[in-house]
Amino acid sequence: MKIIDKINQSIVENKPFFSLEFFPPKTKAGIQNLYDRLERMARLEPAFVDFTWGAGGSTSQLTLELCQSAQKYFALEVMMHLTCTNISEAEIRSALNSARDAGIKNILALRGDPPVGSERWVKRDDGFAFGADLTGFIRTEFDDWFGVGVAGYPGGHPESASLESDIAHQKSKVDAGADFIITQLFYDVEEYIQYVRLCRKAGIECPVIPGLLPITNYQRFKKFTDFCQTKIPREISDQLELVKNDDAAVRAFGIDLCVKMCRELRDAGAPGFHFYTLNLEDSVKAIVGELGLIDNASSRRALPWRQPTVPERNNETVRPIFWSNRPQSYLARTEAWDSYPNGRWGDSSSPAFGNLNDYHLIRSGLGQQKDKRLAEWGEPQTFEDICNVFVDFCYGKITHLPWCEGSIRPESKRIETTLVELNRHGVLTINSQPQLNGVDSADPVYGWGGTGGLVYQKAYVEFFVSPADWGMIESALKLCPTVSWHAVNNAGDSSSNIQEGVNAVTWGVFPGKEVIQPTVVDSVSFEIWKAEAFSLWKAEWAQLYPEDSKSPVILNTIADEWYLVNLVENNYINGDIFKVFEAAGLLIKSRVRDSAQSVNEDMLNI
Amino acid sequence: MKIIDKINQSIVENKPFFSLEFFPPKTKAGIQNLYDRLERMARLEPAFVDFTWGAGGSTSQLTLELCQSAQKYFALEVMMHLTCTNISEAEIRSALNSARDAGIKNILALRGDPPVGSERWVKRDDGFAFGADLTGFIRTEFDDWFGVGVAGYPGGHPESASLESDIAHQKSKVDAGADFIITQLFYDVEEYIQYVRLCRKAGIECPVIPGLLPITNYQRFKKFTDFCQTKIPREISDQLELVKNDDAAVRAFGIDLCVKMCRELRDAGAPGFHFYTLNLEDSVKAIVGELGLIDNASSRRALPWRQPTVPERNNETVRPIFWSNRPQSYLARTEAWDSYPNGRWGDSSSPAFGNLNDYHLIRSGLGQQKDKRLAEWGEPQTFEDICNVFVDFCYGKITHLPWCEGSIRPESKRIETTLVELNRHGVLTINSQPQLNGVDSADPVYGWGGTGGLVYQKAYVEFFVSPADWGMIESALKLCPTVSWHAVNNAGDSSSNIQEGVNAVTWGVFPGKEVIQPTVVDSVSFEIWKAEAFSLWKAEWAQLYPEDSKSPVILNTIADEWYLVNLVENNYINGDIFKVFEAAGLLIKSRVRDSAQSVNEDMLNI
Repeated sequence: MKIIDKINQSIVENKPFFSLEFFPPKTKAGIQNLYDRLERMARLEPAFVDFTWGAGGSTSQLTLELCQSAQKYFALEVMMHLTCTNISEAEIRSALNSARDAGIKNILALRGDPPVGSERWVKRDDGFAFGADLTGFIRTEFDDWFGVGVAGYPGGHPESASLESDIAHQKSKVDAGADFIITQLFYDVEEYIQYVRLCRKAGIECPVIPGLLPITNYQRFKKFTDFCQTKIPREISDQLELVKNDDAAVRAFGIDLCVKMCRELRDAGAPGFHFYTLNLEDSVKAIVGELGLIDNASSRRALPWRQPTVPERNNETVRPIFWSNRPQSYLARTEAWDSYPNGRWGDSSSPAFGNLNDYHLIRSGLGQQKDKRLAEWGEPQTFEDICNVFVDFCYGKITHLPWCEGSIRPESKRIETTLVELNRHGVLTINSQPQLNGVDSADPVYGWGGTGGLVYQKAYVEFFVSPADWGMIESALKLCPTVSWHAVNNAGDSSSNIQEGVNAVTWGVFPGKEVIQPTVVDSVSFEIWKAEAFSLWKAEWAQLYPEDSKSPVILNTIADEWYLVNLVENNYINGDIFKVFEAAGLLIKSRVRDSAQSVNEDMLNI
Repeated sequence: MKIIDKINQSIVENKPFFSLEFFPPKTKAGIQNLYDRLERMARLEPAFVDFTWGAGGSTSQLTLELCQSAQKYFALEVMMHLTCTNISEAEIRSALNSARDAGIKNILALRGDPPVGSERWVKRDDGFAFGADLTGFIRTEFDDWFGVGVAGYPGGHPESASLESDIAHQKSKVDAGADFIITQLFYDVEEYIQYVRLCRKAGIECPVIPGLLPITNYQRFKKFTDFCQTKIPREISDQLELVKNDDAAVRAFGIDLCVKMCRELRDAGAPGFHFYTLNLEDSVKAIVGELGLIDNASSRRALPWRQPTVPERNNETVRPIFWSNRPQSYLARTEAWDSYPNGRWGDSSSPAFGNLNDYHLIRSGLGQQKDKRLAEWGEPQTFEDICNVFVDFCYGKITHLPWCEGSIRPESKRIETTLVELNRHGVLTINSQPQLNGVDSADPVYGWGGTGGLVYQKAYVEFFVSPADWGMIESALKLCPTVSWHAVNNAGDSSSNIQEGVNAVTWGVFPGKEVIQPTVVDSVSFEIWKAEAFSLWKAEWAQLYPEDSKSPVILNTIADEWYLVNLVENNYINGDIFKVFEAAGLLIKSRVRDSAQSVNEDMLNI
C-alpha cells in the first residue's frame, strides 16, 4: 500500500497517525536488537516505518534487507530512503529495481548529506544534484509503482540562501512527483506552522508531516541538533539545562515536550507525526501512548491478526490459530505460498508449510538474547520450576516463552486465575482464547474488522502435558461431548476426536458482507505446528544451559515424552472449556476460578 | 449417491424412509403434469424416486429424460428401471451407457413383463433371460458405477413353480451383485414377513423394501391386482366391497389400510416403504404425512435449500437468495457451470448464469396450467386486484405466484400479518425471511445442517413497488443505516447503498466446522435475477389473458415501470426490517403487526 493512501485515509477519518524512522545498525548484535525492537514496536501499529539509506555497498544492502524483513515478517508498511550522495544514476536505477522486486512501494527521495569527512555536498557527473531530480527520475522510470516522499526544512535548509528559495526547491520536488513531505526535526512548532503556510501559498498542496526527535539524552541531543543546525527555542534549552545531569529527568522532559509539541501540531492541522527514533524504543512508546494513538488499536484491526503489507498477501483471510503467538514464524514458513490460504483451509489439502529453519535466518541472533532469556526463565531444576516459569508468564511477570513472542494477550487476562492454576498443576498452556458470543467489533480488547459488526470466538486452549495427565484428561474428555480435541507427542503418536477438517474458532458478522472467519483449528497444520512447538523446547530453551547441567535434561524429557494438546469448546454460548480439567482432577472444583462464561455485550457493559 | 447408502444410513439412524415410483406418461400434457407433481412431491423428501422402463424406442428415451430431469431440476435421488423384455444385449449396454452419461447412479434390474399381447415371456437370442443375468451384466460391464436393485415376490412369482424356487432365483440375483430388493405389491403383511424370513434363511442379507400400492380407486385396484395376480386378504376385499361405490370412501379406506400396513411392516423390521404411485399424488402424501415421515424434514436438511443429487454439484455450498422460491429455474440456469459456486461468491466475478429460456424447456407446458392459474389469479382489473392476489398468497389461499413455485414457506408465517399489510399497500412481496439469532439447527422450521449447531439469518424482504412508493421508501431508508438495499427497474435503472460484494444472510455454526453460509445476497446475481423476475409478469401472468383485455395492460405496466427492491436488515440481533415501511407511510405504525424480533431459543421455547 502506498503511504500517501494511508495518510489520506487518516485525514479523512480525522485520526492522527504516527510513523517511526530507524537506521541500519553497524553490528550483527545491533541488527538482532533492532529486529526485536521492530517486533515490539510493530504492535504499536505505526502507519509506516522507514529506514535510512546506508550510502554505498553493504550498508545500502542492509537498508533493503531491513525494509524487506519489516514488510514480510513484521507486517509493517515500509518506506526506504534513497539519497543522491556519491551514487550514479545506474546505481540508483539498480537500487530502485531491487526495491521494486522486494515489493517495496514507498521511497523517501533525498539529496542526502555530504559524505563523512567532506564539508560540502558535490554532485557526481553521472548522478543527481537534487531531491527533485531523483523524484523526477523515479516517476519517469517507475511510473506509479512507488509512492514518493521528500524532505522539508521548516528551519530552512542549512545550505540555502533563504526560506523563499527553500520553498521554491520544495515546490520543484512536489512538481516532480512527490506525494508528501516529511520535515526535518524542529523544536519550534511555530516554524512548522509558518513553513506549511508558505508551502500552501506557493501552491504545495500535499500533506506535510512534522518530523520529531524526542530528547532522550542530553549529549546526544546537543550533538544531533548541532549537526542539523536545529534552532532550539530559548525556553526549551533553559529547561533542559536545569536537568541535564539527571538522565531520567532529561528523558521525562523529552517525553513531556514531545507530547506538548504533538498536541500543538495537531491543533495546527498536522495529519500525523513522524518520529526519528534513533533506533530507541521507550520514549516514542511513552509519547504515542500518552497521545492516545495506540489505545484503540484493536478496533482498527481489519482481522484479529496483523495483515501483511506485501502485495502478494493482500487477499490473506484465514490462518491456523497455532501460530498466533509466533506470527513471524508463520509469515516466514508460508512465504513461498502462491496463494493465502494455500488452497482454502476447508479443502484440508496440505498447506505446504516451509521449513522451520528458514525462519531462523532472521532470528539467528539467539545468542544475543541469552542473558535476557536466562533472567526470565532461570535454571529450572525440577518440573515445578518449569511450571513456575509458565505461571510467571500468565501473571505477566515475564514477557516471553519459546512459543510466545510477546507478553500474554489482554484477552487471556480474563482467565488468568484459571490458567495459573492449570500451569501450577503441570498443564503448561501456550495459547488460549476465551469464548465470545457476539461482541461489538469495535471493542478495544476483542474487536476487529471495523465498526458495526459482531465478533464471535470458540474457547480454545493449547498446552503441553505429561503422558500420565494426558491419560486423565483423555478419560475426562469423554464427559465433554462439545469439545473437539487433538493430542500428539514428538514421536508422532496422534489421537483426536475430529475428522480431518477445519474448525473456525474466530468469526465476525458484518453489515453487507460474508461471514469472515480468520482463525481456524485444523488437524493438518496442527501436525506441522507440532514439529515446531516441540523443537522450541530444545532450540530456544534447553540450549541456554551447559549440556551436562540439570535443566536441559528436564526440558528434553518434556520435549521427548509429553503431549501437545489442543481443545476447542464448540459451545460458544454457554460451554465451559475448563470443565474437562476439573473432571480430570487438574483443577480443584471448589476453588474459585474465572468464569468461562461467554463474553457478550451485556457483560462488557456492566 | 447410491440408494443402498441412503438405505443403510436410514437403518443406522433407525428412521424409516420412503420412495416413490412413477411411469412415463403417454401424452405431452401428462408429462407436464408429472413434472408439476414431481416438483410438489420433491418437497416431501422421498429417499429416491424411480421411473419404470418404457420398453422400446421413444418411451425408453422418455424414461431416461425423466430420470435426468428429476435429478437435475428437482434434486431427487433417482433409480431407473431396466427390463430384459424384447431388448438385445447391445441395446442394454447402450441404455446403461446413456444412463451413466446422464449421471444416473441406480438401476432397478428387472426381467420385465411379457410384451403387451403376448401371454408368456420369451427370451431373445441376443438378450437376457433373467434379472440375475442383467444384474451380473451391469456388474461386469460397469463395475461399481451403478447401485442395483432387484424385484422380490412375497406372494410368489406368477410364473414360478414354488416359493422355494423363487427364493433360489432371488439368491442368484443378489449373488450376481444386487444391493437391495424391492418387493412386488402385496396386501398381506404376513406374506412379507415370511418372505424376508425365507430370504434370510437362504443367506440373502440385503435390505428388502416392501412395495405398496395404496388403493385409490376400486376399478383400478381390481385391474392392477388381477394383472399382478396379487392375493387380497378376505378381510380387505370384504371391507372394500362395502364402500366400492363411494370413490372418496375407497380412497380414505386405501389410506387407512396403507398406514396400518406400514406400521405393521415397520414393527416387522422393514427399513422403509416403496410406494407405487401410479403417478398419483394425494393418497401417498396423506400416508407419509400420517406416518410422520415428513414432519421433521427441516432438521434433516443439510443446507437451507435442497441439495442437488447430480455428482457435479456435490460441493455446492452457497446460492443467492433470489431464486429460493424458484429452485428449478436456478438449477437450470446454472447447469453449465464447471464449479458451484462459479468462482466464490466473494469474488464478485460474474457468475455466468445460463439463459433464462433453457429453463422453459422443461416448463414448456404452461398452456396446461392455464386454467389452474386463471382460477388462482383471476382477471385483475385494477392494481388493487393484483395486490389482493399477493395477499391471498400470503394467507396461503393460493399456492403459486410467478415468482414462487410453491406455497409461502412456513418461516414466513411468522410475519404473515405484516406481509399482508404491505401487499395491501402495494408493496408486492415475493421473497422474505425473518431474522434468527442462534436457533437450534435441529429446529423443524428454521433448522438445517444437522444437530448440534446454531443457525442465524439476517431479515430479508424483496418486493415490487411503484416508482412513487419507491421514492418514499428510498427517503425512509436514509433513517435506517443498518439496512442494505438494492433497487432496479426493468429498464436497468439501478441504485443501491452497497458496494459490489456479497452479504451472507443465512449462516450456521457447527461443532468442528467452518461457518457455513449457504445463502447470500449479491448485486451481480441480483441484476441477473431481475431480468427473470420482470419477465415473469409477462411470460407467466399477462399472457394468460387476451391481448386486448384489461389485465395484461396493468400487468405490463408493472413490469415496465415498477421497481424490484431487496432489503437486508444487517442487525440480526434487534433490528426491525419493517421500520422502513412505517417511516415511508406504507405500514400504519399504530396497527398491531408481527414482531420483527429476532428468533432465538428462548422465544421458541415459550
